[in-house]
Amino acid sequence: MNIVVGYVDSPEGEAALDQAIEESRLRGGKVVVVHSMVGGDHEDTDDYRRSAAAMERVHDRLHAEGVEHCTHEYVRGQEPARDLMGAVADHQAGLVVIGIRSRSATGKLILGSNALDILRDTSVPVLCVKRKAAVAG
Amino acid sequence: MNIVVGYVDSPEGEAALDQAIEESRLRGGKVVVVHSMVGGDHEDTDDYRRSAAAMERVHDRLHAEGVEHCTHEYVRGQEPARDLMGAVADHQAGLVVIGIRSRSATGKLILGSNALDILRDTSVPVLCVKRKAAVAG
Repeated sequence: MNIVVGYVDSPEGEAALDQAIEESRLRGGKVVVVHSMVGGDHEDTDDYRRSAAAMERVHDRLHAEGVEHCTHEYVRGQEPARDLMGAVADHQAGLVVIGIRSRSATGKLILGSNALDILRDTSVPVLCVKRKAAVAG
Repeated sequence: MNIVVGYVDSPEGEAALDQAIEESRLRGGKVVVVHSMVGGDHEDTDDYRRSAAAMERVHDRLHAEGVEHCTHEYVRGQEPARDLMGAVADHQAGLVVIGIRSRSATGKLILGSNALDILRDTSVPVLCVKRKAAVAG
């Protein structure tokens, strides 16, 4: 079963990637890494450069770990949820993995509109993971 | 890895249970079915009877399918999210499965406060599934 993971260069994105790798080992499918440029319409050259470098690290890691995968970078101004849905359809994926933020200092979950859109629009199961917690004593 | 599933007697609850069974087969753990009485503080005797009957069906199904499991019915007036978290801790579960509603006729996701609470409060990954769609032609 192919697995689509929404990747962003953040602890949440890394947690989602870790989980997607684990799921691909369990389920025997390929990992489809989808990166949508975030930050609205005003990404500059530095953002693109950072994004490309992050995706190269992702590719190198998956390659080194022997995980069948492909990567998609979308910079076409669509909502990330639409990019993910497109990848689900293109790769006939059976699972989506996304990273979600932990609660803020005020205890309120910062469940972004992207996460809500993905939960709303995806017909396949969505696995929501948080960044790794600091190790408790 | 043990798997906690939030069960309600609805198409979403059945979808969550189906997925939890699948995950337990993949991951080799037991399924912990948690049912919190819904509908606030005013459940009547019929509600309890229906709930008990539904949980008996769940038990019978898991037993017939040879799935190692246990069931918990909570009627102690806590929020369902707290009951689920308690089960995660008690059974050292590594995954939570919940059913979420599809979008409403107006296209708005009815992501209930229970689902949001669970996403906020759970440290382990949460797998969100929707009811089975009608089969497309």
